[in-house]
Parts: sequence; structure tokens; C-alpha cells
Amino acid sequence: MRASQLFIPTLREDPGDAEAVSHKLLVRGGFIRQVSAGLWSFTPLGWRVHRKIEQIIREEMDAIGGQEMLMPVLTPAELWEATGRIAIPEIFRVKDRTGRDFILPLTHEETVTFHARELQSYRDLPQLWYHFQTKDRDEPRPRGGLLRVREFIMKDAYSFHVDVKDAQREYKKMYETYQRIFTRCGLQFRAVEADTGNIGGSLSHEFQVLTETGEDALVACDNCDYAANVEQAVARAPKGGTNPAAEKTKVATPGKHSIADVSAFLKVPADKLVKTLIYLADGAPVAVLVRGDRDVNEIKLKKALGASQIVLATDAAVKEVTGAPVGFAGPVGLKAPIYCDLEICALSDFVVGANEADAHLTGVNLERDFTPTACGDYRAAAAGDACARCDTGHLKAYRGIEVGQVFFLGTKYSKPMGVTFLDAEGKDTPCEMGCYGIGVTRIVAAAIEQSHDKDGIVWPVPLAPYEVAVLDLQQDDPNVVATATKIYDGLTAAGVEVLYDDRNERAGVKFKDADLIGLPFRIAVGKKGLAEGVVEVKRRNSAEVRKMKIDEVVRAVAAEVAAERGS
Amino acid sequence: MRASQLFIPTLREDPGDAEAVSHKLLVRGGFIRQVSAGLWSFTPLGWRVHRKIEQIIREEMDAIGGQEMLMPVLTPAELWEATGRIAIPEIFRVKDRTGRDFILPLTHEETVTFHARELQSYRDLPQLWYHFQTKDRDEPRPRGGLLRVREFIMKDAYSFHVDVKDAQREYKKMYETYQRIFTRCGLQFRAVEADTGNIGGSLSHEFQVLTETGEDALVACDNCDYAANVEQAVARAPKGGTNPAAEKTKVATPGKHSIADVSAFLKVPADKLVKTLIYLADGAPVAVLVRGDRDVNEIKLKKALGASQIVLATDAAVKEVTGAPVGFAGPVGLKAPIYCDLEICALSDFVVGANEADAHLTGVNLERDFTPTACGDYRAAAAGDACARCDTGHLKAYRGIEVGQVFFLGTKYSKPMGVTFLDAEGKDTPCEMGCYGIGVTRIVAAAIEQSHDKDGIVWPVPLAPYEVAVLDLQQDDPNVVATATKIYDGLTAAGVEVLYDDRNERAGVKFKDADLIGLPFRIAVGKKGLAEGVVEVKRRNSAEVRKMKIDEVVRAVAAEVAAERGS
Repeated sequence: MRASQLFIPTLREDPGDAEAVSHKLLVRGGFIRQVSAGLWSFTPLGWRVHRKIEQIIREEMDAIGGQEMLMPVLTPAELWEATGRIAIPEIFRVKDRTGRDFILPLTHEETVTFHARELQSYRDLPQLWYHFQTKDRDEPRPRGGLLRVREFIMKDAYSFHVDVKDAQREYKKMYETYQRIFTRCGLQFRAVEADTGNIGGSLSHEFQVLTETGEDALVACDNCDYAANVEQAVARAPKGGTNPAAEKTKVATPGKHSIADVSAFLKVPADKLVKTLIYLADGAPVAVLVRGDRDVNEIKLKKALGASQIVLATDAAVKEVTGAPVGFAGPVGLKAPIYCDLEICALSDFVVGANEADAHLTGVNLERDFTPTACGDYRAAAAGDACARCDTGHLKAYRGIEVGQVFFLGTKYSKPMGVTFLDAEGKDTPCEMGCYGIGVTRIVAAAIEQSHDKDGIVWPVPLAPYEVAVLDLQQDDPNVVATATKIYDGLTAAGVEVLYDDRNERAGVKFKDADLIGLPFRIAVGKKGLAEGVVEVKRRNSAEVRKMKIDEVVRAVAAEVAAERGS
Repeated sequence: MRASQLFIPTLREDPGDAEAVSHKLLVRGGFIRQVSAGLWSFTPLGWRVHRKIEQIIREEMDAIGGQEMLMPVLTPAELWEATGRIAIPEIFRVKDRTGRDFILPLTHEETVTFHARELQSYRDLPQLWYHFQTKDRDEPRPRGGLLRVREFIMKDAYSFHVDVKDAQREYKKMYETYQRIFTRCGLQFRAVEADTGNIGGSLSHEFQVLTETGEDALVACDNCDYAANVEQAVARAPKGGTNPAAEKTKVATPGKHSIADVSAFLKVPADKLVKTLIYLADGAPVAVLVRGDRDVNEIKLKKALGASQIVLATDAAVKEVTGAPVGFAGPVGLKAPIYCDLEICALSDFVVGANEADAHLTGVNLERDFTPTACGDYRAAAAGDACARCDTGHLKAYRGIEVGQVFFLGTKYSKPMGVTFLDAEGKDTPCEMGCYGIGVTRIVAAAIEQSHDKDGIVWPVPLAPYEVAVLDLQQDDPNVVATATKIYDGLTAAGVEVLYDDRNERAGVKFKDADLIGLPFRIAVGKKGLAEGVVEVKRRNSAEVRKMKIDEVVRAVAAEVAAERGS
């Protein structure tokens, strides 16, 4: 393609509101344009990248027997009422002119399960269906360009099975397929154990592109292959029991209601203090105890309580439950169920609030001074924690951008929607299901977060909108233009995707735009080189500039491109 | 692909609510499934057809320099407020959780024009941008399967030009490209002059697939190449003037208020009667006169009146304007503007209502008995009319299914949205625009309406989900299965798309399903043929069954398929 015939609206300045590198570079490079907060159009260059990712996914899905289909965006609300997901606040709601309710779905479990009612016999199973479809999401704070948006394209796949074993076989196959897909996309990523969130089910992995600025906090063991989203990461239970030595003693702590204040005032390290947090679990108060240097993981807590909603109690509610202002809550004598994190169960002689203003208790011990309702893993795992999976490793912290997730759903959707099949014995049985999503749109941004420099994007060959940039450095020199054209034609004929910058612009502008747009190979054709019979070839990801003979450059560059294309 | 591994939910019975052939066959053939009225999912087989159509369109758009991009579905309402299209009742409206208004757009003129603000100089023009995108439409009566739906995929293209001449050059190019696209899709179609409807602009052609059951009424000249949607078709003005001979006479016509009744009662043919219809044009009454055997074309009338809305007056309003009940309106003495169709201007001594109950006037003449406000073309063209374009032809009536439309928009969108560029003289000038749509989804149905028989669909090769069906007629015969597999593998290796019906089903079921699904070639492998060393090859569109030698069939069928693929 000739750049003079393509709409590539590059900009010299970053957009004012942009913080994420991919946001800045996608806008400056002329790949995307914002229509409204979180709603983006893809320009021709950006859409080529998107379509390349789509095609990689399609090839890998088809290779394992995935069947591409399409389900509509506009969805009758009653399907989501059947599963209860209608309550999710991120759903856009629509009424038709007769007042009938529709939604714009976040994912298509309900619709696909509706269709799966046609699978009537075990002989119709398994099935693996997928589509690429627009998803809308009433995101309160869209940000980061394509990283957090209100509309995007997802590849979502759904599978149906006769039993758990077969569903887990598919889960493993999809896990491996996702590894191939993200590898082919040229991404550095890690699969981590994940919470099942709005989708549900009992087992899930996220595929996280590792970047310094990712929104998701991850931990991974430095010894074994355990890795998880901190939402999900298991915190190791400390070994050993308790060894009470001190007397329980009330001490005055006037105005000291933060862990830092109490620690400094009593000269006790934070890991010997215990935080008592009052939550309302579906409206009923519960106390949660974690070490002073730890945070409660609300996702774990909610699951452990079997609650459908948990929120931190208001100051007034804390006062009502503990009889004391916020900052002085403690388990001793408390009239509420008490949930102790496992670390507390290995702690002796610790400090807690006294349930009265300006007072704490020191020398407190479990069982002796109070009886917990339950002990469990309620805290957020953190860097430095011992690994819960192996005996010797420790967790390291990472940041990631989630680009895909796989779920074993079990019968979460098939049961409420009445999707059963006749098994080999003629018995009506609900399908076991899996679902598998990839945020195609987000990969465009994640790839850039991971691969860029100060001058612009550094596309890997498989995602690049074009593989090679050909630049003519002097538009007024017929020999330069003729040679550039010959190389452009030659590479195109060799099946290489070339963007020929034939614009009537200075060489400096062309170099700058080429770096910004980030095509993997750049061939610069200039007077000086032609006098020596050479052109300059540069990889975007290397500083090296190679001089190549004019009649060799097409063959050589075509071969280098082909070697990195993958398939 | 092996049928045993593909979800093809064929049915023996037509869906209860289906009337259109394509609706019946798409559902019975397992190509689509309804989620809700007018909302359809494409199963794997149906989606392959859709993707093939998409790819034909993409190739032809790219060949003329079209740049594929993507604009979002969810669209801020303010863009549509700027052009006034927000009032269109078919738009689905959405609010986000903060109460901000969005819409689901019928087309993307507003969004694309918003982006076109970046085209700042005449050097940035022309541009031709297109995308394939989901369109939603609050259709009050979805029907006909994929023929009239609430969600579908449209290819919409938009072009931007420095002047009218360049916009018209593009219009012509798009017109020719559309002809290539529909030809490649294997459709019998006709380009007809069309009304510009909700999109607007000053020139438009529809591409109509000709079928007996199409929703759109078309006329085409039997002599020249004039063809138009009846909404738009010019009715020829009769030659010659009037020749008044009779006296105006009031006659009693008790209870005769229809044209048929009056014609029979007075023994005057309907073409000597004149209908006087009272409309409210933006609320104000007007009278429209057409011959008794004609119908008013409300689209023409609305344009001629420059009204934004016209509706037939209620019985009460007619009484108020004419002083008489419905059925007795007439122009003589009427206190309302009178619009006469051109045919009336060549009519003498005609019959009209007397503006009093149970009375008509005979022998009425224009000018002598009443003065029209204007004369013009207000009637619907009809079969048998003389052609308005040539001197000798007559119009014939057709029915069609609209699958595409091209528009010259002028500055209808660029002006209200403030999209200007600096021309060669440095003057700020609004862009001239064109837009060009194809209903990809509807083509799937239109192709079937045009090509089917009593047993099922007859796909043309370029749209067929697979090109060849291979059937093994005896699943329990290893030789039959081995031969069928060999042919399947051979054709697949030759680049042919094959559906191998390897299901454990009787031969009768396989033949029936093959006819229903309608793949262009069928190769049946059975015991009897193998004894003679042959298999049976049948084209879906022919009754002829050819015996082919086993080692020749792959080469022969691959060649026949390739010859019809087009590109």
C-alpha cells in the first residue's frame, strides 16, 4: 500500500489525557480515534492489527475443532433473568418501542446455552463453539486507551460435555491453545490461577501479559510454577502453633487508631498487631482478623462466608457492633462471628483493640481470650510470602494485563436454563460446560505496552499492520523513486506486506513516522546509498543499519520476514 | 470437515411462523436459529456463508482503494442530534448509568463525518473508508427470517471529496463495484433509481435481487434501461391538453363513496373518475387529485410539498375541510391548496366528489371549474405506464429484495457537522460525500429466495458453505468408507471445501440432508458403484447423475468447482 493513498493521521503530540504508553502511541501513530469516553474507532492501520490478531486466534481455534458462529449483540433480558446475571451493574440496558427489555451482553453464556438445548443426546457432544463479537460494558471509568473501554471485540468460546472429565480435557486443550495463540502474537505472558468473578464456575486461569504498568497484581513462585492473580492467590498457612506467655492487659492508646500509630506508640511491630475489621455480609456484621501488616482479600472472604455481597461496615455500624469508635475494635468479648486469618492462629501475645475508645489489649491469645467462629485464608497474598504450593519458594509480585481467561463452568448455566441431554443410559443429564475468552481489542494495546521505545511502537512481525516500510528519501530524484517503487513491487510480489511511504514529505518526517508506526523492517532508499548501489535496511527492534545491494534486498528481507511470521 | 464433528441441526419440519422460502430453508437446513423476534444466531454452516459474502465484498472494496476500518456500535446521541436523525423512530436508545444518552446506529454517517474532521486539506482527499459492522433497528414487525430483522451486519462505506464532480466519479465507481460484487455472489439483480429515505442526499440507486416474493415493488422499461423503485419511479406526463365539452352537473350518488361504487353507479370507467385525497402536511390540510385508477405516491408528494411529515387526514378532519363525509371530497369550491397529478391536467369532463354527502359532480374541468395550486408527478408509477425516459417503452412490474444502495450525499452531513477542508485556494469548503451500503446478512436470504427447489437450497459455488458434499452410503462397509475418505482427503488437499457426511445415518437421510443444505456438488460413494469402480457425481442444480471413475473424480470435480468460484 502507498502511504499517500492511506489515511494514517499521525500526530506529533501525545493526547492530553493519556497516561498509558499504548494509549499515547496508538493515538499518535494514527491507529485509533476516540468517539466518546471508552468508545474507539479503529483507523485502517489499527484495524489491520486487530484483524491479524483475530486471524491468529481463528486459525488456532479451528485447528482444535472450534466451530465459528455468530450470536447477536442485542439480547432479550429474560435470558439473563434466568441466570440472575441481569443484576450486574455493568450491563447496558435497552428497551424497544413496545417497552420490552433487552441488554447488551458482557459475554454470551446465556445465549449459547439457549442454543445448546438442541444438543439432545450424548452423541451430539462434545461441542466447541466460538465467535468474535462486540461486547459493551457500562464501565464507569474508561481509561488507558484500549486497556479499559466501553466497547470491544471478544473471541468467546463455549464448550459442552457429557461429564466433568471431558470438560476438563477440553479445558486443558484450550489452555494449551491459548498459550499457542499468545506466543504467536509475540507476547510475554503468564497463565495464572484466577477468580471466576461475574462468569462463575469452579476453576479458572487468566492469561496475563506481563508489563510494569498492568492493572492486575499477580504473584508467582520463584521456585515452582505456581502463579495466581492476587485476587485468588493462596496465602500459605504458617507452621507451628501458639505459645501464650503474656497476660492480657488493657493499655491506654489515646487517639491511636491506625496500625502505624499503635505500633509506634506501643513500640510493637505491625506483625504483632492484629487488625479487627467489621464487615457486613449480606447485611449481618462479622469481624475479620488479619495481621497488622496484611490486607483482607475480600474475594476470598466473600467466598468463605458464602455471602452474595460484603461491604466494610460504616463508622456508625462499627460503633454499634463494638461499642467503640473505628480503630479500637477487637475480638475479646465481641458479639459477632469472628473469622481469623490463618496467620493469627499461629500468633501469640498479640495486640488488639479493646472495644472501647482510646484503649487496646496486649498479650491477647486465641482460644484463651476469645473463640473464633472459623479460621481460614482471608488475607491477600503478598510478595515475599512463602509459596503455598511448594515447600521452598517465595512469591514474587508482577503486574499484568489480562488478555484471556478460561473457565470450567460445570453446570452453572446448563442447570438454571434447563439444558440437559440423554446420556448413554437414557438418563436426562445437565451438560458440563466451559467458556474461554480472549479480549482481541486489548491485545492491540498489551502488545504495545510490552514492546515500544521512546520513538514509538515496536511491532512483532505477526501483529504488524504492514511488515516492511519502504521510504524514498528524496521525492524529487527519479532514480530514488524508481528504485523504491521497484523494491515495493518486488516485496509485494513476494507476498510481503509493504507500506511504501511515497508521500511528498522530508526524509526526517518519514523516518519519524516510520519509528512511530513501528513496522518491523525499514528500507530507506536515498541518493547517497544509490551512488554505492545500496539501500539501508534497519530492524525496528535494533539500532543496526545494514547496507544491502539493491538487487539482493527483496530476497533477503522477504526471507527474514517469513522466518518471523509464525503460523 | 466431517459432518459428525460439525453442529448442523437440520429439521424435517418448517418452522411454524415461516412464510418466506429462505426463512424456512435457513432454519430447516440448520443455518440460523432465532434468539428472539428479528434476532438471529448464525450456526457454523450459516456463518460460513456470511463470511464468504463478506470476503467477496472486502476483495472488491480493497480493489478500488477502499480502506477497511471499524467504528463502534454504541454511539453518543449528541452526534445524531447534530444531524437531526435522532428523531428516527427505528433507533434503539441506551442510557449509561450516569444517564448519558447513546444510540445503536442504523448507519454510521455521523460517526464517520466526525472522524473526517481530520481531513484538513484538499491533499487529504479523496478518501474511501468502509467497515463491516452490526446494525440494530427497532423494527416493529420483524419477519421473513433474515429478510427483515432487528440486527444484521452491514458493509457501509463513506467517501469524501473536494467537489461534486469527484464525488460523482466515486459514485459511478461504487455502482460498478456493486455490480461486480453481486455478480460474484451469483445473484440476478437490477440497479434501480431509488428514494434517499432516512439517509438523504440527492441521488441514489438500489441494488435489487429480483424474486417473485420481494418486499419492494420495482418497475423497469421494456425498451430502455430505465428501472426504479416504485417509491421513486417517474410517472410519465400524458401528452396533449384538455378539451372540455360537458357541463358541470351535480348528480346524486347515495351511499357511493368508493371509486368502484361510483364507477358502477354512474357507468363511468375509473380512469375518468378523479380521487380527491385530503392529507395533513405538517398539520395543514392539502388536497391531492389523482385518477380513480391510480394511487398517490406519498414519498413524491412529501418531497413536492417540502413537508417533513404527511399523513392522510382522519374522517373528522376530512369532514371539517370538505364539509362532507369521506368519499365525497372534490376540488370545486374547496378551501385548501389543491395539488393535481399530471394525468389530471390532460383529463376532460371528469367526475369528482361534490363536497356534500351522497353527491358527485360530473363534467368537471380544470381551470374552468377550479384552479390547482400546483400540478406535478404525485402518483405511483404502475405496470403498463409509458416509460418517462424513452419514447416508446412501457414499464413492467417486478418484485425485489434490496441488498445494497448507493447515495450521493452532497454536504448533507458535512455542513451540519462542520466538516470542511482547505481547498487549493486556501478557502474553507465543506466536503462532498457519498455513502454505500450492502446488507451482508440479507444477501444470505436473497440468494436462497432466488435459488432453491422443493428439496432445499441450491447454493451458487461462491456462497456455498462447502463446495462439495461427499456421502458414504454404507457406513458398515470398510471399502465404502475408505473410498469416501480418500476422495474427501484428495479434494481437501486440492483446496476444495468439502463436507464429508460420515454420520452413522441411512443413505436416505444423507441424500435428504444434502439436498436441503444445498452444496453445489454431491459425490455419493456406495457399494454398487464401487463394484463397477465408479462413484456418482450430481450437481445440485441439475437432475443429471454422472458416474465417474474413482481415480478421476477428485481432479474432475476440483476443476469444475474452480471454474465457478470466480474471484
